[in-house]
Amino acid sequence: MANPTFIICGVTGDLTRRKLIPAFYHLLQKNKFEKCAFIGISRSKVSPAEIFESSHQFIHDIDADVWDKLSNSFFCISHDFTDHDGYTSVGEKITAIEKKLGLPGNRLFYLATLPELFNDVTHGLASSGIAKRSCKGDGCKEPWHRLVYEKPFGHNLKSARALNKKIAEAFDESQIFRIDHYLGKEHVGNILMLRFANRFLQPLWNKDSVRSVKISMNEAIGIEGRGEFYDKTGALKDIVQNHLLQLLTLITMDAPKKLRGECIRDEKVKILKNIKVEDSTLGQYDGYADEPGVEKGSTTETFAAIKLGVNTPQWKGVPFMLGTGKHLEAKETVINIEFKKPDCLFTEDCPIPSNTLRIFIEPNEGFSMAINAQAPGTQYDITPAEMRFVHNSAAGINTPESYETLLNEVVGGDQSIFVRFDEVEEAWKIIDNVSKGHPKLYKKGTTGPSIDF
Amino acid sequence: MANPTFIICGVTGDLTRRKLIPAFYHLLQKNKFEKCAFIGISRSKVSPAEIFESSHQFIHDIDADVWDKLSNSFFCISHDFTDHDGYTSVGEKITAIEKKLGLPGNRLFYLATLPELFNDVTHGLASSGIAKRSCKGDGCKEPWHRLVYEKPFGHNLKSARALNKKIAEAFDESQIFRIDHYLGKEHVGNILMLRFANRFLQPLWNKDSVRSVKISMNEAIGIEGRGEFYDKTGALKDIVQNHLLQLLTLITMDAPKKLRGECIRDEKVKILKNIKVEDSTLGQYDGYADEPGVEKGSTTETFAAIKLGVNTPQWKGVPFMLGTGKHLEAKETVINIEFKKPDCLFTEDCPIPSNTLRIFIEPNEGFSMAINAQAPGTQYDITPAEMRFVHNSAAGINTPESYETLLNEVVGGDQSIFVRFDEVEEAWKIIDNVSKGHPKLYKKGTTGPSIDF
Repeated sequence: MANPTFIICGVTGDLTRRKLIPAFYHLLQKNKFEKCAFIGISRSKVSPAEIFESSHQFIHDIDADVWDKLSNSFFCISHDFTDHDGYTSVGEKITAIEKKLGLPGNRLFYLATLPELFNDVTHGLASSGIAKRSCKGDGCKEPWHRLVYEKPFGHNLKSARALNKKIAEAFDESQIFRIDHYLGKEHVGNILMLRFANRFLQPLWNKDSVRSVKISMNEAIGIEGRGEFYDKTGALKDIVQNHLLQLLTLITMDAPKKLRGECIRDEKVKILKNIKVEDSTLGQYDGYADEPGVEKGSTTETFAAIKLGVNTPQWKGVPFMLGTGKHLEAKETVINIEFKKPDCLFTEDCPIPSNTLRIFIEPNEGFSMAINAQAPGTQYDITPAEMRFVHNSAAGINTPESYETLLNEVVGGDQSIFVRFDEVEEAWKIIDNVSKGHPKLYKKGTTGPSIDF
Repeated sequence: MANPTFIICGVTGDLTRRKLIPAFYHLLQKNKFEKCAFIGISRSKVSPAEIFESSHQFIHDIDADVWDKLSNSFFCISHDFTDHDGYTSVGEKITAIEKKLGLPGNRLFYLATLPELFNDVTHGLASSGIAKRSCKGDGCKEPWHRLVYEKPFGHNLKSARALNKKIAEAFDESQIFRIDHYLGKEHVGNILMLRFANRFLQPLWNKDSVRSVKISMNEAIGIEGRGEFYDKTGALKDIVQNHLLQLLTLITMDAPKKLRGECIRDEKVKILKNIKVEDSTLGQYDGYADEPGVEKGSTTETFAAIKLGVNTPQWKGVPFMLGTGKHLEAKETVINIEFKKPDCLFTEDCPIPSNTLRIFIEPNEGFSMAINAQAPGTQYDITPAEMRFVHNSAAGINTPESYETLLNEVVGGDQSIFVRFDEVEEAWKIIDNVSKGHPKLYKKGTTGPSIDF
């Protein structure tokens, strides 16, 4: 058994209370490990009790025994991540906890700090020896050290390369787990399943049959007090560079040789290398610049719509639209695959609606196909209809939270659902090519600004 | 306006009370004609009141004014259809009614007698001059006479040809309307709509993507007191020769040049000429031979399953299964189009279920596609799911009864939804090739006998 030590760098952030604590709780509830420890590190001094109190609301039907077990194995260490000398003392404290609990020292470091601290944390963990490069070869019996990097990985191609260079100096690629939460979301695995386990889609999945593809991730909420983080990031880096490009590659990639790690990522990178930005519209919701943590007169975009081409034999000429925004009409993540129009057999002006396959990801999960049926009481009049298989992902079906899956995969050493650096590089090349400038203002609760293309 | 005279030959049958009277009622309710008459002919003496009383239960929410209008324009004539001399007197009575009501003499003859009387009725109507061959050319201003033949048209190729010869001696093909009720059923028009107004199906509709096609018309009821008719007919002639072969041609035919009459029938006949019977299983439910009107020791089949091949470039090698039976588990008419298996990317033994498009016709109408989705809580485990668009055809949506549509089309002179004689010929050639013999007995309420293929 792995019996891991989970070390959260930046434990006071929103991520810990909303996602990591519930994930830890469920891992314990399912008895995934014989024993383990959770160690939170943050600049500000904080107690486990304070963190737990704010996390309580994100777990349903708490079992007191599990909760106690989690509380008893949770520790906090105060440390300024920019204080390079301080890491040695952090290391000693971690070792002491592991010794006390009889843990072997398999360490999972979760970098949940502000992204601009990733360099410091990486350097500090490496130079102090808290995290070591993994040994190789048959005789290697050391405990493992693995580092999980929250997104975004860098803020452009240059900074991503610099960060990755820093990491590679100290660690092996097999130790690095770059997160894209959408990869942990089970519905994304479902895209591959949909594509490759459903024969009826195979003759349709190309430029001869597909008219356009639109991938939307719309949010109804705003930046939720995360102004400091968000204002340095914006929609392109927060959503498009990772989530939406990942979804796009899953939709357009060739069948991998096997449905596992490297094979899938090889195919995804092939697609990313062939993506060209064709047009874009950026937006900012009214009132954004007055949010706490946001710079006055900020030009950070809270909305982005990008038109892309995928220059492969399979997809050349098909327009791909990616869109995301905050404070939009409704929360929805959905992929629309619109098929070409049929030949005109029914009417002279042929206003036949396209067939559209919709892949619902959030808040509902499922699929639908918009079809054309006969209008009741007519012989050849068309009426639109929809075949649907959609369920609310929260409605009783046991869908494990994405973070639980992610942590499990890291402990198991499987990088399949994480992002390889060449994916990150290619994604930044695409995003660096989106022309910036002043975003268009849009009203909250609308569909965003008018799109230029 | 047509102002037609509807003449029902064989007015005392089940068809009149269950279908024709309700259809007449609705035509009047909708004020389709300025005036019209309904004349029922039967060997036994019967009054309109007797017919109406037994029909009352098949019309919902009767409007007294419409009902009175129908009663007042309904007349009965007693006549033995084998009495060739008697037709003259029938003709005089019809003319008198038309004169009294000021009708122009546009006559729709509905042949609803036992099929073995069709020859007699045709000859009698023609020789007495009650029904005349239509005139041709620009100067032709005579009222029209049209003949509607209930199914089955003949009981094999030879008898169908003999009947058609008899008809052709007296009438023009444009006057002949051979019924297949499924053609009037709006859902069948919907099959053409589904096929030709939905682009996503176009690359799939061939032997490269389709693994098998199964067309089932299962009935939960038995022969319902129609023993005399049924015992001479059986499932092959009652259902397979017409309904199921019609559905098969609609599924497999090429796109017609236009979605109208002759073009559609041209394509249907092309398919019928290429159908080969490959195997068959016939059955008879326990107790059938004891039903009233059925001959002791009868070998008439109440169940038929036929395996066919369609020898065209598009369909060569795909097995087509037609199936029908009485006293089966459930009433259902449905078409299953099973697609080929996908390549094995997910598991080594590849037990991936096929995608299946289902076209529901009765009792529900609609479409579904069986797809493979990701099992919740797994990464690459498959679970079957179904996209559905299905509605109960009786659930409020205004679907006109098929007989109403049929009668309307005859009055309008449009043969689109009727069967051309070459269709009938080709269908009999197929059915005549099914080997008979003793049917297998099966228990009521089951799925029928075991199928041999």
